[in-house]
Amino acid sequence: MNQLQAYIKNENTAALFENTSIGIEKEGHRVTPEGQIAQTPHPQRVDGSSENQYIQRDFAESQTELVSPPVIGREEGVLQWMHAIYDVTIRHLDNEEAIWPYSMPPQLPSDDQIKVAQLDDPAAVDYREYLVGAYGKKLQMISGLHYNFGLDPDFIKGFYQAGYSDYDNLFDTQNALYLKLARNFLRYQWVIVYFLGASPYAHDSFFEPGVEPVGHPVRSIRNSEHGYVNHEDVHVSYHDLETYITTLENNVKTGHLIAEKEFYSNVRLRGGAKVRDLLHTGIKYLEVRNTDIQGDAPYGIQLRELVFIKYFLLYLLWIDEMADDPEIEEGVKIKTQVANEDPFSQTVYYEEGQRIVKGLREMLTDLAVSQDKVDLIEEILHRLEAPEETPAARIVTAYPTVEDWLASGLAIAKKNRKNALKAPYQLGGFTDMELSTQIFIADAIRSGIQVEILDRTDNLLRLSVGDHIEYVKNGNITSKDTYISHYLLANKEVTKQIIQEAGFQAPQSRTYYSLSEVEAAAGFYLDRPLVVKPKSTNMGIGISIFKQGPSREELLEACRIAFEADDSVLLEDYVPGVEYRFFVLDGKTIAVLLRVPANVVGNGKATIAQLVAEKNKDPKRGLDHRTPLEKIQLGDIEALNLKQQDLTFDSVLEEGQKAYLRENSNISTGGDSIDVTDQVHPSYLDIASQMAQALGVNITGIDLMIQDITKAAQVSEKGANYGFIEANFNPMMMMHVYPAQGQGVRVTEALLHYLFPEKGFLK
Amino acid sequence: MNQLQAYIKNENTAALFENTSIGIEKEGHRVTPEGQIAQTPHPQRVDGSSENQYIQRDFAESQTELVSPPVIGREEGVLQWMHAIYDVTIRHLDNEEAIWPYSMPPQLPSDDQIKVAQLDDPAAVDYREYLVGAYGKKLQMISGLHYNFGLDPDFIKGFYQAGYSDYDNLFDTQNALYLKLARNFLRYQWVIVYFLGASPYAHDSFFEPGVEPVGHPVRSIRNSEHGYVNHEDVHVSYHDLETYITTLENNVKTGHLIAEKEFYSNVRLRGGAKVRDLLHTGIKYLEVRNTDIQGDAPYGIQLRELVFIKYFLLYLLWIDEMADDPEIEEGVKIKTQVANEDPFSQTVYYEEGQRIVKGLREMLTDLAVSQDKVDLIEEILHRLEAPEETPAARIVTAYPTVEDWLASGLAIAKKNRKNALKAPYQLGGFTDMELSTQIFIADAIRSGIQVEILDRTDNLLRLSVGDHIEYVKNGNITSKDTYISHYLLANKEVTKQIIQEAGFQAPQSRTYYSLSEVEAAAGFYLDRPLVVKPKSTNMGIGISIFKQGPSREELLEACRIAFEADDSVLLEDYVPGVEYRFFVLDGKTIAVLLRVPANVVGNGKATIAQLVAEKNKDPKRGLDHRTPLEKIQLGDIEALNLKQQDLTFDSVLEEGQKAYLRENSNISTGGDSIDVTDQVHPSYLDIASQMAQALGVNITGIDLMIQDITKAAQVSEKGANYGFIEANFNPMMMMHVYPAQGQGVRVTEALLHYLFPEKGFLK
Repeated sequence: MNQLQAYIKNENTAALFENTSIGIEKEGHRVTPEGQIAQTPHPQRVDGSSENQYIQRDFAESQTELVSPPVIGREEGVLQWMHAIYDVTIRHLDNEEAIWPYSMPPQLPSDDQIKVAQLDDPAAVDYREYLVGAYGKKLQMISGLHYNFGLDPDFIKGFYQAGYSDYDNLFDTQNALYLKLARNFLRYQWVIVYFLGASPYAHDSFFEPGVEPVGHPVRSIRNSEHGYVNHEDVHVSYHDLETYITTLENNVKTGHLIAEKEFYSNVRLRGGAKVRDLLHTGIKYLEVRNTDIQGDAPYGIQLRELVFIKYFLLYLLWIDEMADDPEIEEGVKIKTQVANEDPFSQTVYYEEGQRIVKGLREMLTDLAVSQDKVDLIEEILHRLEAPEETPAARIVTAYPTVEDWLASGLAIAKKNRKNALKAPYQLGGFTDMELSTQIFIADAIRSGIQVEILDRTDNLLRLSVGDHIEYVKNGNITSKDTYISHYLLANKEVTKQIIQEAGFQAPQSRTYYSLSEVEAAAGFYLDRPLVVKPKSTNMGIGISIFKQGPSREELLEACRIAFEADDSVLLEDYVPGVEYRFFVLDGKTIAVLLRVPANVVGNGKATIAQLVAEKNKDPKRGLDHRTPLEKIQLGDIEALNLKQQDLTFDSVLEEGQKAYLRENSNISTGGDSIDVTDQVHPSYLDIASQMAQALGVNITGIDLMIQDITKAAQVSEKGANYGFIEANFNPMMMMHVYPAQGQGVRVTEALLHYLFPEKGFLK
Repeated sequence: MNQLQAYIKNENTAALFENTSIGIEKEGHRVTPEGQIAQTPHPQRVDGSSENQYIQRDFAESQTELVSPPVIGREEGVLQWMHAIYDVTIRHLDNEEAIWPYSMPPQLPSDDQIKVAQLDDPAAVDYREYLVGAYGKKLQMISGLHYNFGLDPDFIKGFYQAGYSDYDNLFDTQNALYLKLARNFLRYQWVIVYFLGASPYAHDSFFEPGVEPVGHPVRSIRNSEHGYVNHEDVHVSYHDLETYITTLENNVKTGHLIAEKEFYSNVRLRGGAKVRDLLHTGIKYLEVRNTDIQGDAPYGIQLRELVFIKYFLLYLLWIDEMADDPEIEEGVKIKTQVANEDPFSQTVYYEEGQRIVKGLREMLTDLAVSQDKVDLIEEILHRLEAPEETPAARIVTAYPTVEDWLASGLAIAKKNRKNALKAPYQLGGFTDMELSTQIFIADAIRSGIQVEILDRTDNLLRLSVGDHIEYVKNGNITSKDTYISHYLLANKEVTKQIIQEAGFQAPQSRTYYSLSEVEAAAGFYLDRPLVVKPKSTNMGIGISIFKQGPSREELLEACRIAFEADDSVLLEDYVPGVEYRFFVLDGKTIAVLLRVPANVVGNGKATIAQLVAEKNKDPKRGLDHRTPLEKIQLGDIEALNLKQQDLTFDSVLEEGQKAYLRENSNISTGGDSIDVTDQVHPSYLDIASQMAQALGVNITGIDLMIQDITKAAQVSEKGANYGFIEANFNPMMMMHVYPAQGQGVRVTEALLHYLFPEKGFLK
């Protein structure tokens, strides 16, 4: 038992050992609907610069690189990020472009039609032009999948502090662990090629003139001598960190490499911007580079591969061995050899493979890895005995010719595109979060703003651009509003007082604290158009409206419902007109919405309950703000509203007859959203903006009752043609972005721009 | 039926008619414990300038003037303000001074010992010196009670809009209503003197040399020719607004008055700074000036007088009559005549009184005034038949000689002082509000910051200095913190993440979402010092601490309790040491508190339950943050904690044996507070300040676990001698201001200064 195993077993630290950090980088070409490499520039609305850490361009202008942030502990989290980044990328592609799902490119055009990435940084473009000269354009068109892998710093610290390290300081201990892993990986990298190799074919156009195309399917062209390899005279030693740095730098100094990043080793030591930085940063993680893109996985890799690679890497740290430089050289040769094998054949390294599989299984047992993960790993391990189950073999079986394979690539690309466009309002990987937050994350990804999910159930994000940090909760709770503003807006009476004092129209209202208090005052309200609402909710819950004034019974029933939502209830003058929602940001109204109360339209046959059920089938209708619209409920308030129209849930509506189940028009209670931003008279835009300013709130939804939005706001002795209803903190954004009718306004983008004015890309 | 009565009856607007605005100004001398006029300056810590709208100085330096803001509709509200302002004033008086409770001053010193108010404004001092020359110092030493009275603008507007006004515009309508009221008041002002006259005596020292002292008790010396009256050649007409302004200005122009404010009419028309401003502001309210201070009322007036005057004034508007100038002159004479009557005699104007009482009663019936108010009014009206029940007569009965009366004044002053000091942490009139808010209002009053209570149950205040407005809720929810900061601090895991990233020490923790999840992981926690707490509460509710690690049963029981308070529960490393609360404001730690968990100390006889009951009798212990300390509860958590010590509620503790009923030390769960601001090592002050900065929060309570507060904070490889526990939004302030032990820090003042740096008085 080596020191690492002893530490894990004696100190019970398997959980720390397994608590790794994983991130994925996946390249892939944009292709036309005909399956050609796209000749178009990178989509304009996606920040594809190296400042966007999610979406970049690799060698070619057509070659998108999707980068997940490192995720600690949860392998599923990596896939969620890839899903999201993939969705955002696809949704911004022009001309129905899709993304090629394989490592090997589709049929390539002539070299003059392959554009290197048109980056702003001239050095980055120059580097790519150098690569063209050194390797040819075609080689650079291969797409890879890189697996960034880090150990839990607490694991390393514990290993050192508990006295298991051979080194007398934490820094050297950490570097030694990563170097051991890197060396063993280079020795055994063929394992990845055998189990995950998925590039059996390449189209003839891939091969430079004079190069003999591979005449038969292999496990991985990409890992063969036809793939990304440095010239043979490039030698870098992994013996120790200092030697690694010196030998790599020497290759650059002597001109064998133009830059450190041209060193195409299948494992890179990461930690600093330049390799010499590692001397003070230490090795922080490894970049493992020889996994082929898995064509059957929507984002190039699935959970089982993620888990398999992780435990394979842990295994390389777990074992007693440590490969030396000659063994590493041997490992590189074995990798190439395995890559060139017939996918259906048993590998020449079968016995070494058996030893590894056995050792890996023993480690899984020793670590007591959870059964679901073991199951995933076994799905891959059994391929040692069944080479026909390797990805390369499966591709060849399914697509016997290169032409079949090319066709499959396009079909998969189109299918993936279709899936990404199916529910454009949602963000794949994050559909459990509030929809506004999903849209917000999507916009951040697109714009290259770093976004961390601090608390998923809380919908709490940390956004950053350089040193500038902004926290955002529930889509628009930010640093731009004050703590007190929330309470001012929550208090509807105080809000109205401030609005009235600022010279705007707001209806009169009174607060009641008990039903008996309302009973005593009921006479006053019987002939008054009236709104009954709980004092401190902003979701439309418990609100009833009586346009003609309530009966005594109706009043008390409405109050009873309202008192269920709050200790105090407002009885407020009903202002005639139609209610509109004004989304105000930074003192300007940027979107206006008409919300139509929850309703159904009859067909002469169905009951209201049946019509509601039918309407609720719309996938845009969901629950709890995960979709642009909410399902219509059949509760007390709906029943009361129908009763006012002499209807029940069992009433059958005539063809075309419309019944409203709510008086209040909130989307959260099943209402429909109609974008009217372009129709509304500018005077109301100003009024809403000024109201927000009077309230001292920078992000708010102002509800105004307006008699005719096309006519200017007016106030005379007789009254006004508009009235303030309420100001909402944390106003819903999704209904503006994805209205039921109308074009919609992407208020999330405007908010991001407000938070990060320095991020010009948002404009 | 006149137009006003018709409007009220036809349009059902009695409620609007009664919805008046009332404010009180009450003067009173500071007196020494011996009953002498205080020779000390106005207390330094009370802003007594004219900028403080609550506490000012009148003529003399010793003469405080307490001014309530106008209160609409609720007469009780006026008394609440007077109570608060009185409490604040008394609590800041030096040398055990008290406030003289009568209109007529105590024994006066020689004129050279009477100082006019030492105001900063030289013009204000000059004016007072002029008054000395014109009237003598002694006369100015009378203290009055002024009653500011305004009608509901909606009543006036409705009266006009519904077509009942004789005028063709709202402005003239409003002025006419107030003028009618003013004229009728001047005619019938004797009613106030008869029913409320309370200055039967004056000490001989009050009378200027050569003036014949009043030889017998009267109803009101203050309203007699010995009181505040202008010279006879001052004539001002109330015929119409223009005439009023012109005649008043003429008196100033011709030198009969040095300034408009020297016009000592018993009713003033108010609305603008200068009387001519009334031409564009209109009359907004009336100042009624002839009520004597009611010595038996702690703040000079009680609810019954407030209500009586209100309905008497409404009656003067209600009646058909409108006094003309000769009738007004007659009214002034009658007033003086009644003031000079023997208090026990039937008034000469008894029959006119009968007519008024009858009419007033009829109006009360017509308006359907509530019975509780009618009862209050009747308490006064019956004095017409029983002159011995008038305040003046009652004073003479109780204190037959001037010396008795002087002695009674001092006794009352002392009693009032004692009452105001009884619970110095609370603010009279506002004891239903959160204690922190009470203290905050008191500090605002003292400092001359305008404070409006926007919502009483919400503890929501609007503070202002000039145009600068700040809203404050629950004591310290303000514009100084961001909306998002609240959510960051509410999320304890995210808070700790940020603290850790900023380089500070914070214990590790994990979140669980169900009891079964905890059950599955229980083994991990059994030997770990542990804190179990709900994720998102900040009041100590549901927190359990296991210093030695819990048993399985204890862990699950603690989690069960925690899950009652939140959907998710944190299991967090317990950091050894003692927990301290650091109150951080604007990046600086200004107060540090040790909170000792709820505890009792045994006496060898009582059970723990009995000891708790005894300890809870302390008036400083209350419920729901209305007192500096909270009552100790006997709930599940307390039982669980005692169980850990092998105790139950029925255990009898030995003499001196201390038992803790809580592990958490929150004041809100019955803990004791000990101010340690001066003992704590400065390194912790810095750490707490920097933590607040890292969290981006400006008002917070940082809880740190510290091993020894006298030793500097240290972090080594082995760990740190302190640990971050949590950061609290809306941190309790009262426990810093009024700790159970130690001097205390008035953090409310520091916060006010932070909100209003321009208000130098706060320093």
